[in-house]
Amino acid sequence: MARPKFTDIVAALPDFVPFVGPEAQERKQGYSFRVRLGANESVFGPSPKAIAAMEAAAHENWKYADPDNFDLRSAIAAHHNVALSNVVVGEGIDGLLGLTVRMFAAPGDAIITSDGAYPTFNFHVVSHGAALIKVPFVDDREDLIGLATSARKHNARIVYVSNPNNPMGTWWPASEIAKLHAALPAQTLLVLDEAYADTAPTNAIPELDVTSANIIRYRTFSKAYGLAGARIGYAIADEKTIAGFERVRNHYGINRVGQVGALAALFDQAYLRGVVQEISAAREAITAIAQKHNLSAIPSAANFVAIDCGGRGQKAEQVLSGLLEAGVFVRRPGVAPLNRCIRVSCGRGEDLAIFEQALTSVLAVL
Amino acid sequence: MARPKFTDIVAALPDFVPFVGPEAQERKQGYSFRVRLGANESVFGPSPKAIAAMEAAAHENWKYADPDNFDLRSAIAAHHNVALSNVVVGEGIDGLLGLTVRMFAAPGDAIITSDGAYPTFNFHVVSHGAALIKVPFVDDREDLIGLATSARKHNARIVYVSNPNNPMGTWWPASEIAKLHAALPAQTLLVLDEAYADTAPTNAIPELDVTSANIIRYRTFSKAYGLAGARIGYAIADEKTIAGFERVRNHYGINRVGQVGALAALFDQAYLRGVVQEISAAREAITAIAQKHNLSAIPSAANFVAIDCGGRGQKAEQVLSGLLEAGVFVRRPGVAPLNRCIRVSCGRGEDLAIFEQALTSVLAVL
Repeated sequence: MARPKFTDIVAALPDFVPFVGPEAQERKQGYSFRVRLGANESVFGPSPKAIAAMEAAAHENWKYADPDNFDLRSAIAAHHNVALSNVVVGEGIDGLLGLTVRMFAAPGDAIITSDGAYPTFNFHVVSHGAALIKVPFVDDREDLIGLATSARKHNARIVYVSNPNNPMGTWWPASEIAKLHAALPAQTLLVLDEAYADTAPTNAIPELDVTSANIIRYRTFSKAYGLAGARIGYAIADEKTIAGFERVRNHYGINRVGQVGALAALFDQAYLRGVVQEISAAREAITAIAQKHNLSAIPSAANFVAIDCGGRGQKAEQVLSGLLEAGVFVRRPGVAPLNRCIRVSCGRGEDLAIFEQALTSVLAVL
Repeated sequence: MARPKFTDIVAALPDFVPFVGPEAQERKQGYSFRVRLGANESVFGPSPKAIAAMEAAAHENWKYADPDNFDLRSAIAAHHNVALSNVVVGEGIDGLLGLTVRMFAAPGDAIITSDGAYPTFNFHVVSHGAALIKVPFVDDREDLIGLATSARKHNARIVYVSNPNNPMGTWWPASEIAKLHAALPAQTLLVLDEAYADTAPTNAIPELDVTSANIIRYRTFSKAYGLAGARIGYAIADEKTIAGFERVRNHYGINRVGQVGALAALFDQAYLRGVVQEISAAREAITAIAQKHNLSAIPSAANFVAIDCGGRGQKAEQVLSGLLEAGVFVRRPGVAPLNRCIRVSCGRGEDLAIFEQALTSVLAVL
C-alpha cells in the first residue's frame, strides 16, 4: 500500500534500542528487581536540597521552563569559570550527542569511536546516516593513539572518547587526552564525554579550554549528582559551537522540575563531595567482593565497577543471567573482550549485601 | 581558523528562536510579569493528584524513567482505545514534530504549512533542510483546500495542520479535516497537531484511525492538563510510523517526574473536565473584556483568545507593548494579517482582572 516514505536513512535503520530499560526486563521476567545496580544511577540520591526544590517545583509545573535555561546555565558557567555563551543544556548527554552528530556529520561522514564504548552515541551516529568506524579497546582502555590514527586516516568529522570510560570505568590522565586532542586535525571534533568526571581523579580531567574550536565537553546531573530521572546534561564548548546547538535544539525540551533540581544540586557541592566519597567506598567494596570470589575488578574512576569474570564471556553471561534471576539488576558490556565482565553500579551497603549474596549463590552453581 | 565544519544545512541556518521565553523578556526589561497569559499554559494548574504524584516522584528522581514509557503509553492507549504500538511519547509535541520532519523529509523535500501557523514546526522544517511552503490563512482559519492543493502541486512529504489552530484559536469540524485527509496523496503525511483538542468541541476532533498510514495525531499534557513544564507530548499513528519514531528518538529523553505526573493527570479526567469548563468561562470573559473595549474577539476552541485590534497590526503592536510594560505577558501572532491580534491565554478571574485593568490603561492613551 502506498504510504509516506521514511527518508532513505531512516528506512535503512534497524529496529535497535541501545539500552533495554530495567522496567522492560521486569515486565518480561514477571518480577521486580531487588536492587538496581545496572544503569549507573546514584542510589545515594541527589542532595536533599534538590529534592526539596523539585517538590516545590512540582507546584509550578504548569509553566514551561525557561527555554534559555538561564539560571542553570549561569550557575554552570560560574561553576566552571566559563561564559554563559560556552554552555548549552540538553535532555541528558544523550540528547546533546544526537544534536552533535546532526550538527557536524552529513550522511556518510566518518565518525570514530571505540568498539564497545557508549552504544547510545553509536545509535545517534547510525540514525543520522553517518559512517561509524570502531577502534578496539586496548587493555580495557580506549586506545587514544588508535583513535587519532583512525581519525586522520578516515578524515573523520568526530572522534568520541569517554573519560572515565563506560562500560569499563578506566580512564586516561588529562595529559593523554590533551595529546589526543593535539593529534587531531583542526577540522576533527573531539567529543569528550565526561559523564563520570565527578567521580574521577582530578588529574584525569583536562582544564577546560573554550578557545579551542574542536572539542566539546559533556557533563551530566545523572551520575554523581543523582538526578538521572531529571534528564539534564550540558556541554561546554567554544561560543560558535554552542551557537550551533541553538540552531537545532528543541528549545522547549527541558523540564521545569529537572531544571530546578539540577540548579539546587549544583549549589550543594558539599553533598556532592559526600556522595563521591560514598561512591569511592562502594568501588572498594565491590572490588573486595569480587576478589573474595576469586574474580578481579577493573580499577574504576566511575560510579561503577566492571568485574572480570574471565574467559571469553561465557562465564560473565552466566553470572549476569544468574544475578538477574536473583533480582539483581546489573549489566554486561556488549562487545568482546569487554563482555567477559559484568558492570556493577555503586550502591549502599544494603544494596551490595544483596548483590554479594546473589553473586555467591550464582557462582556456587557454575 | 580551521575548525570543525557544521553540515551545509546547519551552516546555512539563521540564529533564530521561534519563541523567546517570558523569562528572557523579564531579564531584558528588568521586572517580572504580574500575570503570565502569553504561552497558553494553564494557570489553573494540573490535577492535585498529579502534583502529589510529582512530589513523590521527586524522591525517586535518581532513577532514569522507563525509556519505553510503558505505563504512560498503556494508559494513553487505553484512553484512546488504540494499541500500545500506536503511541509514542516525546519531549512535548515540539520534540515529536522535530522527529517527524527528520523521519519523513530529506533535505529539499517540500513541506506545507499555513503562513502564521506554529513557528516551532517551521523551525524544525528549516533546521532539517526541508523546503517550507506556506499557504495563507483565509478568514483567520487554516485554508484546508489551499493546503491540499499546495500539497499536490509540490508533491509534499508533509502537510501541517493545527486544529484547533494556534495562534487564532479557530477550528474546523472533523468532517472538513477528514476531507483534507482524503484529498491528500497517500504518500503525503498529514501532521495533525491537536495540542488544543481537550478544549475543542467534540465535533472538531476526527475519530482516531490508526489504520491510515498517512496521518499522525499529536496531543500534549502542556495545555488543558496543566503540565507545560513536564514536557510530555504524544503521537498516535499507525504501527509502522510509530516504529519509525523508535528508530530515531532519544530513548532516555523523558523525565521521570513528568512521566509520573502525566499519568496521574490522565487518570483524573474529572479534574480535566473541570478545567475545561474554567477555560471555557475564561474564553467568554476575555471576549467580554474585548467587546467592552470595542475590540472583537476571534471565537476560540483553544485555551486562549485572539483579540482583534483592527487595522494592519500597528494597534496590536502598541497594545502588546503597553501590556508588556504593565507587566502582563501576552503574545501577538507574527505574520500579517494575523498580527492585527493579540493572543491572550485563559486565566483565572484575578489574572483577567489585571489584564483588563492594564488593557484599559493602554487603550486610554492610544
